[in-house]
Amino acid sequence: MITATTTAYDQLIDHVKQVSLLGSTASLLGWDQETLMPARGLAHRTRQLAQLAKLTHQMKTDPRVGEWLGECEADSTLTSEPLSESAVNLRELRRDFDKATKLPESLVVELAEITSQAKHEWAEARKANDYARFKPWLEKVVELNQQKAECFGWDRDTGESWDALADNFEAGMTAASVAEVFTPLRERLVPLLDDILGSKTGPSNAFNELKLPIDQQKAFVKDVSEAIGFDYARGRLDESTHPFCSGTHCNDIRMTTRFHEDNVNDALGSTMHESGHGIYEQGLPEAHIGTPMGQSVGLSIHESQSRMWENQVGRSKAFWEWCCPKLAQFFGDAVAMLSKDDIYGGANIVSPGLIRVEADEATYNLHIMIRFEIERLLMNGELGVDDLPGAWNAKYAEYLKVDVPNDTRGCMQDIHWSMGAIGYFPTYTMGNLYAAQFFEQAAAQLGDLDTMFAQGDFTPLRHWLNENIHAHGKRYRSADLMQHVTGKPLSADPLMRHLEGKLRPLYGV
Amino acid sequence: MITATTTAYDQLIDHVKQVSLLGSTASLLGWDQETLMPARGLAHRTRQLAQLAKLTHQMKTDPRVGEWLGECEADSTLTSEPLSESAVNLRELRRDFDKATKLPESLVVELAEITSQAKHEWAEARKANDYARFKPWLEKVVELNQQKAECFGWDRDTGESWDALADNFEAGMTAASVAEVFTPLRERLVPLLDDILGSKTGPSNAFNELKLPIDQQKAFVKDVSEAIGFDYARGRLDESTHPFCSGTHCNDIRMTTRFHEDNVNDALGSTMHESGHGIYEQGLPEAHIGTPMGQSVGLSIHESQSRMWENQVGRSKAFWEWCCPKLAQFFGDAVAMLSKDDIYGGANIVSPGLIRVEADEATYNLHIMIRFEIERLLMNGELGVDDLPGAWNAKYAEYLKVDVPNDTRGCMQDIHWSMGAIGYFPTYTMGNLYAAQFFEQAAAQLGDLDTMFAQGDFTPLRHWLNENIHAHGKRYRSADLMQHVTGKPLSADPLMRHLEGKLRPLYGV
Repeated sequence: MITATTTAYDQLIDHVKQVSLLGSTASLLGWDQETLMPARGLAHRTRQLAQLAKLTHQMKTDPRVGEWLGECEADSTLTSEPLSESAVNLRELRRDFDKATKLPESLVVELAEITSQAKHEWAEARKANDYARFKPWLEKVVELNQQKAECFGWDRDTGESWDALADNFEAGMTAASVAEVFTPLRERLVPLLDDILGSKTGPSNAFNELKLPIDQQKAFVKDVSEAIGFDYARGRLDESTHPFCSGTHCNDIRMTTRFHEDNVNDALGSTMHESGHGIYEQGLPEAHIGTPMGQSVGLSIHESQSRMWENQVGRSKAFWEWCCPKLAQFFGDAVAMLSKDDIYGGANIVSPGLIRVEADEATYNLHIMIRFEIERLLMNGELGVDDLPGAWNAKYAEYLKVDVPNDTRGCMQDIHWSMGAIGYFPTYTMGNLYAAQFFEQAAAQLGDLDTMFAQGDFTPLRHWLNENIHAHGKRYRSADLMQHVTGKPLSADPLMRHLEGKLRPLYGV
Repeated sequence: MITATTTAYDQLIDHVKQVSLLGSTASLLGWDQETLMPARGLAHRTRQLAQLAKLTHQMKTDPRVGEWLGECEADSTLTSEPLSESAVNLRELRRDFDKATKLPESLVVELAEITSQAKHEWAEARKANDYARFKPWLEKVVELNQQKAECFGWDRDTGESWDALADNFEAGMTAASVAEVFTPLRERLVPLLDDILGSKTGPSNAFNELKLPIDQQKAFVKDVSEAIGFDYARGRLDESTHPFCSGTHCNDIRMTTRFHEDNVNDALGSTMHESGHGIYEQGLPEAHIGTPMGQSVGLSIHESQSRMWENQVGRSKAFWEWCCPKLAQFFGDAVAMLSKDDIYGGANIVSPGLIRVEADEATYNLHIMIRFEIERLLMNGELGVDDLPGAWNAKYAEYLKVDVPNDTRGCMQDIHWSMGAIGYFPTYTMGNLYAAQFFEQAAAQLGDLDTMFAQGDFTPLRHWLNENIHAHGKRYRSADLMQHVTGKPLSADPLMRHLEGKLRPLYGV
């Protein structure tokens, strides 16, 4: 018998699948824009994407969605098992609908306009090292984000306004939950870094000084990504200025990388990173695509998948046991003078610097902490945009021991804030933390991963990730997923064990 | 002062621009499907395109369009000058709206379903040389097309049902108007072919027997397409099984070609052909994109642009004066043993065959005439689908002097009818006819085109096409455009002068 409520649920699901379908079309247009679109096509592409955004927003905020949700939520057969397919979909669709309807249209429009201009002003100001030019735009962005946070709301007893923004990138992420793991992480990272900087020995940099032909690099990284499990019958690898992974469906995933003649490590790291994102997307359950049960948990968990393949796998000694002969196969004599130790070491150089996107695996997290701390202060009104460069430079001196020479290489290096994305940065380091803890658990369950990697056998790890993480879609929020998979809350310990276990021997400290 | 009617016109134009914008998104998805999409992405892509088709159809048939049109048509300030921007837009938008609303939804759905299945059955039947398998589907397609023609209507005094279908591909094209030029064309083509087949001399085929590396072919054809005027800041060239040209906007045109190691002529011809389409699209007036004033006239005129660059330019002696040194530049010693005459001759071999898409410039038109004659008979009920293979084979023996060994290489070679496209084929030869007559006019106005081509100067011709054809959008229907540009109605003479003037000397007949 089909009850009225069953019908409401089916209608709701059909509708959200249509919304996702239209969103997937926008995603393909976005991918094309970054990879292939001819230069002069930009204005038209912007109009195409604006139209799709408008249509999607109309569908998302259709009042029938609210009605269907209300009907379904009143039906205990759909909601009584909190981890059932229907209960999970309803939980997440309620969240999406409330988010889509909580912002007044005037604020949505103003945010779109201001951030579009701010992005342009940021790019110009960065070129000219002219913070004064960017400052009024950043002030406006912070102010509008404060209004946005007011609309979404946050826990007034234990929380702060930053939480309302971060929740858009990772459901349930709060400043307090981030600080709980960032603080112990920083307390162990800074001394590790001090030791490394004080060391008189360290790995050879020779691997990073090789010039290797880009055609050969392309064939090499594609081969590696296929070996770790990216399925090219269900995806592609192309090139773009900034590597990314997008796509339209688990069977059509588009990832990109980039190539420099003198930096095969960058191409390999980027490709393994994006392959991790791609393997996650390809591993989502096909039957649920277009609904929350077929979507990734959030940015932190997504990042955990990319970082694990990039770092836990791709910078391990066992991986290079397998990959060094492959280097010889693709590059021949050009790599013949390097030992396995040179290559493994070269992939693990630690060198504190000014620029986040060039940072190594260890210091990267300090760049993120600085941004997180500054975002909180800005949102709480404890730091004015006037004083941002000073605060930035002081933290870089303290955490990374570097002097920031100018704002272009300092507080204006990243695009995120100009785009209005406050609350986003921490997901990068959260991803590193999740990756390390998931990986320890996988190793505990699967046995000797090093032997597998050394033989080029990455399937057990990929299957473990498929089963334990990808197949669940949004069934668990990130903190619950960690508890479910590892039996423990997220902690800084696994990441520190990973970094110290690898870097102390390499630097003899 | 803004009158109510002005507002209706503005609203109408805004609306049709939105419809076109969404259509341009579907176009990009279609292009991606043919060029880059991973194999397993097909099912999702089909869903994306179906959604866009549905949304577009809803927008096209929005009752407000009918109301706006009615208001505008009653306003003589918009319609009194028939060639004014507003009058042209209203004329064509009325046509579009009537076409979109004249078919009952049940017939639209049935056509979509039947042709989707018929396409599949055609592909299987063609593989197995099993006409009996395809026959019931073709019968259904013909029957539905007869219903479709009834819905659209045609001139009951002077016309026939085929006209109602052809009008969808080229406004105003009728069987009578096609026959008026096809009959004299055939009367002169068949004897020319007889003479050529009876000749004991002819050009060397050596150029078509060369194997040339595909990477070098790619660089070569891109260079030529750029030289003739395709703007790569506003478009791309990629690869697909069947070359085509699409795109989203005059500033983002996507064309494709294909490569075979042993057939650089195919890659060059395809690329020049698609560049002709692309140059037309890039030449449409940017301010009018999304409205009829910014759209191409129809398929025949589009084909005239592609054929002119492929044939009138690309197979001329003057072109090869310029292009032979370029061959040497891109292919080096591999082409050193060929004379200019070998290459020019090799690009102009005439060889009657069974397959339309492999046909040379002269015999191609006979393939089209056969299809046109058969379509008319099928639509008029004078030929049953049962008797199609026999009729087909008889015409191939009569016009092309070839024996059709089986239906796979006979009446099942083309996809068009299985897709429901009856009335489409003649636009190919109409394009050849338009191309020849436009080209004679351009030569009369521009002076010595041969000298320009021999120097690689294609700009005067391109600018002439821009000004006389592209810039007008849909201002003139095809027959009126011909009259406007050349002062004469379309005739078979220019094409025959072109073919005889070139082929008789080459074959010594």
